[in-house]
Amino acid sequence: MKQSKYILDEKRMPTSWYNVLPDLPEPLPPPLHPGTKQPLGPEDLAPLFPMELIKQEMSTERYIEIPEELQDIFKLWRPTTLYRAHRLEKALDTPAKIYYKYEGTSPPGSHKPNTAVAQAYYNKKEGIKRITTETGAGQWGSALSFAGALFGLEIKVYMVKVSFYQKPYRKIMMQTWGGTCIPSPSMETNIGRKMLAEDPDCPGSLGLAISEAVEEAVSRDDTHYSLGSVLNHVLLHQTIIGQEAKVMMEDIGDYPDVIVGCVGGGSNAAGLYLPFLKDKLDGTHPDLRIVNVEPASCPTLTKGLYAYDYGDEAGMTPLLKMFTLGHEFMPPPVHAGGLRYHGMAPIITHLHKLGLVEAVAVHQLGTFEAGLTFARNEGIICAPETDHAVRVTIDEALKSKETGEAKTILCGLSGHGHVDMAAYDAYLSGQLEDYEYPVEKIKASLEHLPLNGK
Amino acid sequence: MKQSKYILDEKRMPTSWYNVLPDLPEPLPPPLHPGTKQPLGPEDLAPLFPMELIKQEMSTERYIEIPEELQDIFKLWRPTTLYRAHRLEKALDTPAKIYYKYEGTSPPGSHKPNTAVAQAYYNKKEGIKRITTETGAGQWGSALSFAGALFGLEIKVYMVKVSFYQKPYRKIMMQTWGGTCIPSPSMETNIGRKMLAEDPDCPGSLGLAISEAVEEAVSRDDTHYSLGSVLNHVLLHQTIIGQEAKVMMEDIGDYPDVIVGCVGGGSNAAGLYLPFLKDKLDGTHPDLRIVNVEPASCPTLTKGLYAYDYGDEAGMTPLLKMFTLGHEFMPPPVHAGGLRYHGMAPIITHLHKLGLVEAVAVHQLGTFEAGLTFARNEGIICAPETDHAVRVTIDEALKSKETGEAKTILCGLSGHGHVDMAAYDAYLSGQLEDYEYPVEKIKASLEHLPLNGK
Repeated sequence: MKQSKYILDEKRMPTSWYNVLPDLPEPLPPPLHPGTKQPLGPEDLAPLFPMELIKQEMSTERYIEIPEELQDIFKLWRPTTLYRAHRLEKALDTPAKIYYKYEGTSPPGSHKPNTAVAQAYYNKKEGIKRITTETGAGQWGSALSFAGALFGLEIKVYMVKVSFYQKPYRKIMMQTWGGTCIPSPSMETNIGRKMLAEDPDCPGSLGLAISEAVEEAVSRDDTHYSLGSVLNHVLLHQTIIGQEAKVMMEDIGDYPDVIVGCVGGGSNAAGLYLPFLKDKLDGTHPDLRIVNVEPASCPTLTKGLYAYDYGDEAGMTPLLKMFTLGHEFMPPPVHAGGLRYHGMAPIITHLHKLGLVEAVAVHQLGTFEAGLTFARNEGIICAPETDHAVRVTIDEALKSKETGEAKTILCGLSGHGHVDMAAYDAYLSGQLEDYEYPVEKIKASLEHLPLNGK
Repeated sequence: MKQSKYILDEKRMPTSWYNVLPDLPEPLPPPLHPGTKQPLGPEDLAPLFPMELIKQEMSTERYIEIPEELQDIFKLWRPTTLYRAHRLEKALDTPAKIYYKYEGTSPPGSHKPNTAVAQAYYNKKEGIKRITTETGAGQWGSALSFAGALFGLEIKVYMVKVSFYQKPYRKIMMQTWGGTCIPSPSMETNIGRKMLAEDPDCPGSLGLAISEAVEEAVSRDDTHYSLGSVLNHVLLHQTIIGQEAKVMMEDIGDYPDVIVGCVGGGSNAAGLYLPFLKDKLDGTHPDLRIVNVEPASCPTLTKGLYAYDYGDEAGMTPLLKMFTLGHEFMPPPVHAGGLRYHGMAPIITHLHKLGLVEAVAVHQLGTFEAGLTFARNEGIICAPETDHAVRVTIDEALKSKETGEAKTILCGLSGHGHVDMAAYDAYLSGQLEDYEYPVEKIKASLEHLPLNGK
């Protein structure tokens, strides 16, 4: 059987990021100040982010140039490879053509360094010495530690406590790159101490870890904060994935009917599909379908409330208009598959609200089953998060088989699972079960939302 | 700083393996039958290996064609990337040019699938249903499980017991690809039961795990055995690495003064350097230096006996003329860095004996220190085994700085360390110490060698 692997010459790597904001049919609802509840100005974000990133967050330029130094660093692992999944197609006996763009060959093994090195770069240029951040499964913390090593920045990572102990390899990766990783809640911040006083066994959450990282960043002049997903500038940096994929599909002479990506905060999926979405918005490819895949245990897009909410547990971040399960969301412990953020990128929220993208929630047993099918046919063991996209890619290919239509599917393969084998072990040994986050809990979170859930 | 990454178009991937045997200035001493102690015939190996691999083991053809189906499968991850280590050079302030060929982007994360898929392919063609093997750190067992998944073969892996419990992620990777992995010594073989009766806490060794895998393979008609290093055909399959590197260096217009690789059984290092060694043998590059790097705790090439020895603990395999620490060698438990085989590939042994390649033993603290320097500059976290090659690459670059000579160094980066973070943790938390395998123990092993150590 012919293998098809497509490599882009690095001379043709995108030299600018694609910013979807000017192409949206309606503007994004603005972020609000957590105190005044009024639209934010750039100066409100200055304690957290370098001015260049704040500008990118709010920019209306369609293309933003990637600094040459950054382009050079990207070449350590980019452009990434696009594959045609011939073996998987054959195993599924489907007429569909399945392509996947694989981000797992970066040094930290995921798409996260695409924005981590960009954020480290702009912070370094502005004289910042330290960056704090949070991490859930650990992919983001390791990517930022990697970026910190390249730029000589000190990185401090608050890792959700339950993951800190479940995934010890991630902490060691961060340390290997010179980063510091501590479990959250910690005794190092006011919010951490408060939570531990209330519940010494608190397992932590992404929202809480963000609060701790933000609290530390605003308290020190030499320190900024960095977020690995959700925000506009993060999705912007990830568009390098989709721009590469687009050039490569053009070279092949093919174009996707459906693009599938997994979403926690949403950056890898949006990074892949936004450059294609442009063709849907301008009428070139009006029928393009885009599917965001999330876990049934954290069903932000499919069941969340559409409202302004905080990005963190303690309510220190700006209010973002997004689909949310409430900023006090704690993921169920039975869930092993990542993607556990209570909110969703405002851009994806907005696109979903406008009916431009779809969303589907999947159960974890099905995602690991899909991961095994993928590994045994295509070879790559994906991260459990990535398996969500693989699940729906397989489902779409099976639909294709039913209808007989030879659809072209493009799947975002955000990272490898070599550091997540404990989750596969839990699956293989039958310790996992499916869990659907109860709608009542989501409704109940309404009363804790700022602006009364508007 | 300019990054330099070199990618070979897959159309230019080597279509044959390079066999060094016909180019050797003296022939290899022949393998001997473990019973008769007479030179082996092909039929003696038939219970273990398919005939095509036996032919390759003994072939005197300089180039052996890679079947088209295999070439296609290689394209799932090959050709692999060649990097110029600009950042590392700058950090070391060396005039040396450092290149590295990185095998860590294969699905199992190392060079091992280069031979695993080839061996699975030939076994499948001969109607074999099952393959047994052994694994130490787990890279080989996972690579063969990956290959088994691609060809629908059942894979059974005997994993050295101490590693089985220290590195649980590797077992889960094998299971994810459908393989079975059990700790060795096990109750499933005579030799395993015997060892456990003598010492229920026996930590196992590669030699012992080989005995178990061989015992099971010879006892079943549908089952063959597979070895991940040492043998001629394994080194042959790995020459795809060096052939790619050679074409790429030619494209760049550079040629190495020194090639550095880490050696356990020796396959990744030899795979990289044999195609270059050809130029040394034919006088094109007579001054090329080749350095094999091994751990001081398993100093086969630098302190081993040059003698016929068994490949396994129980004395079931053919006798190979090699540098050996004795087939009863048990690696010290303090050692975390892999490369723990008692013997050495006969080809490398022979080249070393002829003065065509060098060998150096390094201590583990220095290898992890080098690994950290590499990770913090080049981004990639290498496998602990690979860090041995990185250590000596850095040492050679520092020598270059002292002498002011701008040497060109080519380093074999055999795999990533994402599944080996426990070893990094042991290093970072100060649990490791250096250990030099005592010369007296090596001398004492002489009396257990077959043929009285001839």
